Amino acid sequence: MTDRSPIADELETYYDRHRERFLEELFEFLRISSISTRDEHRGDIDRAADWFAETLRAAGLTAEVHSGWGHPVVLGEWHGAPSGAPTVLVYGHYDVQPPGPAVLWQSPPFEPTVRDGRVYARGATDDKGQLLLHVKALESLLATRGELPVNVLVLAEGEEEIGSPNLASFVERHADRLRCSAVVISDSAMFAPGVPAVVVTLRGTVGFEIEVSGPAVELHSGEYGGAVVNPATALARILASVHDADGRIVIPGFLDRCREWPEDLRREIADLPLSDEEFRAEAQVSELSGEAGYTTFERRSMRPTFEVHGILGGYTDAGMKAIVPASALAKVSCRLVPEQDPAEIARLVRAHVERVAPSGIQVEVRSSTGSPAWQADTGPGSPGHWLQQAASEATMATFGRPPVRLGGGGSIPVVSDFERVLGAPVLLLGFGLPGENAHGPNEFFLLENFDLGLRTVTKLWQVLGDEPRPHPG
Amino acid sequence: MTDRSPIADELETYYDRHRERFLEELFEFLRISSISTRDEHRGDIDRAADWFAETLRAAGLTAEVHSGWGHPVVLGEWHGAPSGAPTVLVYGHYDVQPPGPAVLWQSPPFEPTVRDGRVYARGATDDKGQLLLHVKALESLLATRGELPVNVLVLAEGEEEIGSPNLASFVERHADRLRCSAVVISDSAMFAPGVPAVVVTLRGTVGFEIEVSGPAVELHSGEYGGAVVNPATALARILASVHDADGRIVIPGFLDRCREWPEDLRREIADLPLSDEEFRAEAQVSELSGEAGYTTFERRSMRPTFEVHGILGGYTDAGMKAIVPASALAKVSCRLVPEQDPAEIARLVRAHVERVAPSGIQVEVRSSTGSPAWQADTGPGSPGHWLQQAASEATMATFGRPPVRLGGGGSIPVVSDFERVLGAPVLLLGFGLPGENAHGPNEFFLLENFDLGLRTVTKLWQVLGDEPRPHPG
Repeated sequence: MTDRSPIADELETYYDRHRERFLEELFEFLRISSISTRDEHRGDIDRAADWFAETLRAAGLTAEVHSGWGHPVVLGEWHGAPSGAPTVLVYGHYDVQPPGPAVLWQSPPFEPTVRDGRVYARGATDDKGQLLLHVKALESLLATRGELPVNVLVLAEGEEEIGSPNLASFVERHADRLRCSAVVISDSAMFAPGVPAVVVTLRGTVGFEIEVSGPAVELHSGEYGGAVVNPATALARILASVHDADGRIVIPGFLDRCREWPEDLRREIADLPLSDEEFRAEAQVSELSGEAGYTTFERRSMRPTFEVHGILGGYTDAGMKAIVPASALAKVSCRLVPEQDPAEIARLVRAHVERVAPSGIQVEVRSSTGSPAWQADTGPGSPGHWLQQAASEATMATFGRPPVRLGGGGSIPVVSDFERVLGAPVLLLGFGLPGENAHGPNEFFLLENFDLGLRTVTKLWQVLGDEPRPHPG
Repeated sequence: MTDRSPIADELETYYDRHRERFLEELFEFLRISSISTRDEHRGDIDRAADWFAETLRAAGLTAEVHSGWGHPVVLGEWHGAPSGAPTVLVYGHYDVQPPGPAVLWQSPPFEPTVRDGRVYARGATDDKGQLLLHVKALESLLATRGELPVNVLVLAEGEEEIGSPNLASFVERHADRLRCSAVVISDSAMFAPGVPAVVVTLRGTVGFEIEVSGPAVELHSGEYGGAVVNPATALARILASVHDADGRIVIPGFLDRCREWPEDLRREIADLPLSDEEFRAEAQVSELSGEAGYTTFERRSMRPTFEVHGILGGYTDAGMKAIVPASALAKVSCRLVPEQDPAEIARLVRAHVERVAPSGIQVEVRSSTGSPAWQADTGPGSPGHWLQQAASEATMATFGRPPVRLGGGGSIPVVSDFERVLGAPVLLLGFGLPGENAHGPNEFFLLENFDLGLRTVTKLWQVLGDEPRPHPG
């Protein structure tokens, strides 16, 4: 903390004295292989939930482990703030991605190892490190001051990495109990070391399976080839019809509702020192590409996409089998931007596919419900503006600068769910870094950002406790 | 036989007396599950080869089982024809396709069952029934006359269904011993019941694997989607670029050397009562398709194709994984027509793929050696003409009409190999029928065509023995 009040000094002393234990606890958390995508790790999931609840209690909160909502939901609470103080809900997740091939890890994924001031382990940055720093901040405040400047709810789920299938229901069911003035999520990256960031937009998503069916059974390509439509070729023609030569999506109506970022945000982001070459190297591609007329960063976050995730059809084993396949399948999803509506996009994609599909085959388009894009409402006088301003004050105190505002390329459907159900603005203020290999081998978390994050969220609560939240509208 | 000489009467008596045994032997042959594509049937392959060699010996030929050429090659020989008589090589195969799902068979695939005058079993028409009728014809002639009008070689392989990888080498190695005036193959279909056919053209083939590589590892489609080339989309664009809207192959140079059939053959085939509706129903498609300006039959046999056999890339398991795939693969082959050169076509396809591939990905095109198309040389005074004329005389005697000439859509590389190595013309005179499910469930062979085929090839040898073969040129 840059402002050294006696209380701040007391906190700093506490941080220093307990830092080693904080990290030991983080390593304990990281040793639990709470992989949500694998049934055989169900016991680890439960262990992680219990461990986290116990850690909340040790920090001075009450904590419950809620079962019956898929993997356990852990809810920590502290309601002793001065009258009129707002309530802040901290959301995070204790589940992790599978580690992938062990040979790619320089140290075992569930044996946290410190190298160069970084802790290497699956879940280090996504999201155990970022979630635990909130709890350690709460513990430190309670231990030194006996109270918090805000009421606090800590909500940790174990299904984030499988798409949070049950969280919206949980939030709806417990809406009264979860009522709050702000939601704070630390599950994203800073812009660069020393440069904090808030993510102010997220893309929505809607998924598709496009299945082309031709002959009832695969046919001999000598006897039938040339006289019947080949389903794999038909699928290729469908997929190839989606973009024009400039990389623009030409599905009729698809781009009609796309809203580009406000000019100030677009300019602000365009002015950031984003390096295409660094991004190209990080993506491990020979060359970047995408829709003409937009920067790489805009293509990744401000523009919608139609991305093929997988294709499968006909004979794909070793060697050759000279057939006309009976069918071919593509798995696809679109990333959406404000104001695209997932249901309308699903209709437009289906109509386009059916229009361009050659006759002589059947095509079925199955779509997911999807989720819309999110954009922080930060208009003057809005609760979102109050929250963003508080974040700026907090990072000023710790990083000496306000956070940059970024557009996010991914989709976090629960963000919209929190806003919709709880009526509270969401702040995406993360302490990870680009390139920390969130879902890949050798995931790490820079320990310096554990320290800075802990101080930043402490300051954030102090600011939120001091400044009255405006009434929405 | 329509001409009832005393010898013909004697043969008819033999056929009648032994018909039941002939069919019993066929059923024995069919009970051996000599599936060449499956290693676990290697014992059955050997049993089928031994069984067939023994059957040749019982018919009065010498027979050897040659090992060391992949699955055994069976060679039967009889060289007692009058001086100056030609030598005929009969080629067939004793291996069969896998039966596929058992539930689709009305009776077990390796338990021959007679229904409606048809024997149902895997290999009934392809090729055991058609191969064995030759041996029974030889047996009948030898039993009743003590000699054959021609010298005979019977060459049966066990790798036809896996592409005859070793047969050309065997033929080259034994070229002197296999020297002959004509090669006769019964492994194709008649035009219709009562209407025999000779296949006078075969398409060539050349195979490809087209592999598109993008990012070194799969990428998160939220973080990277829109800013890098998607390999599956790139592959789709490549495959979609091959045909124009009229179904014509637009790879530059691809069609340059295509020779259409001679006008008389094209007209002859156009005049045949070929039903598109029957073919559509047989193919089990909702609608036929193909290159504009050609009939369905021409599309299947006179025109070249670019047929995708399989596509694979990215995530294809259940559910969805929101990635940009690292790579995508297509297995493809082209059917070729005279005078297309497989090596040149491979170069043209590779050049086209590399030209249309977007930058930002790598594309690798791996091609097979391939085989050129075949067209029977039946010019006046040629050995091929002599052989085709003999076939006409033979079917006149048994079916009361000459065979129709057909173009074949498939590829039988050994046909060109026989002509090249042995210098002998090849006659493709089959006794199967369209719709006998050669590679599908419920394969059958019409027993009436076993009887007619046996009589037809007997007559063929008589005609070939009577008429001197012209010198080539």
